[in-house]
Amino acid sequence: MINNKHIINNLAFNNDKKQCLYKMKTIDKSKKGSIDALIKPLLELINSKKDFYTTSSCSGRIIVVALPQNKRKYNTKWLFVSHEEVAVKDIIKHLEAIKSVKDTVYLRFEPIILHIAATSVEKAVELINLASSVGFKRGGIISANKKIIVELVGVDTLDVPIAKDKKLMISEDYLRFIIEEANNKLMRNKERIDLFYEKIKSKI
Amino acid sequence: MINNKHIINNLAFNNDKKQCLYKMKTIDKSKKGSIDALIKPLLELINSKKDFYTTSSCSGRIIVVALPQNKRKYNTKWLFVSHEEVAVKDIIKHLEAIKSVKDTVYLRFEPIILHIAATSVEKAVELINLASSVGFKRGGIISANKKIIVELVGVDTLDVPIAKDKKLMISEDYLRFIIEEANNKLMRNKERIDLFYEKIKSKI
Repeated sequence: MINNKHIINNLAFNNDKKQCLYKMKTIDKSKKGSIDALIKPLLELINSKKDFYTTSSCSGRIIVVALPQNKRKYNTKWLFVSHEEVAVKDIIKHLEAIKSVKDTVYLRFEPIILHIAATSVEKAVELINLASSVGFKRGGIISANKKIIVELVGVDTLDVPIAKDKKLMISEDYLRFIIEEANNKLMRNKERIDLFYEKIKSKI
Repeated sequence: MINNKHIINNLAFNNDKKQCLYKMKTIDKSKKGSIDALIKPLLELINSKKDFYTTSSCSGRIIVVALPQNKRKYNTKWLFVSHEEVAVKDIIKHLEAIKSVKDTVYLRFEPIILHIAATSVEKAVELINLASSVGFKRGGIISANKKIIVELVGVDTLDVPIAKDKKLMISEDYLRFIIEEANNKLMRNKERIDLFYEKIKSKI
């Protein structure tokens, strides 16, 4: 027997999905909010499945960022962002800005992060298990009130303090070493994205 | 109306809780598996609440670890672990081991991680929201098949490559700097644990 609550929930999910995908398309046409190319096929695949749609995403990025001690997000100062491999000279020219920053400055690699709406807790768990099987470290249902939202986060991270009190704390040699590490993590993160794509294609 | 499924679920939850807490107590008596003192009051508070019990935990730690490129956990080589503040000399004496390690070696701060069983998805989400309000970055339901398990992870991290190919890549000055950073993160992580304790006490 098909129950009424189930039908209403399904209608609401499909309506939300339509609105969310329309918004994404509109934003994607503007320069500012464009979805990074690397992750687009994965998002399109997820959005083609009837039980899921993506609400936000980042494919992974190399960043240089100044963080105040209390780490409130609104105080964060961004010095550099790249979703692709970087060269040492790209970073070096942005390090000039450090001379005006008192807070601790970090070079980071942040892995893929996805927020995905699901039709049910069971479907959400299925997706979490799939992500876990390709080596995503963190995955969980972060909201289950009005909508069921899954957060998936990659495993490849780097989090290196490089400056403090307007002073660079590392040598150029060491900078070269950590940029190589960051580029390696970017590559491994990409491999995991490809693997996740294949898993979803064959299993969901 | 109290429904039968609800009663059976509740009985199963209470039974699992009893078994899990008994196991924890037994392990805690041995030296090897002892729960870190810092987190004990928080675990006891959570376990005193009827809708929750803890299944595993780490209060946060400063580690030195060698990671092979593919990052499979079983290949990881641990060189140093501390759940408390560390002195530079403590780390230095463990760095001798680097001379025999070809893989990249990291100095890391890993924040608090908790796994908690909950009686329902609603109760799990309540706990996740509370954790989020004290600044825990990641929180989600990671399993909802037989048991509902919540994972909560702190926000304070550090992930610094310090050696590769049997060679230390950083100066003693920089080591001093990152150990200071690691100790600061440990302290902020502890502040968040205290805050979370107070929130649970007053809100759940």
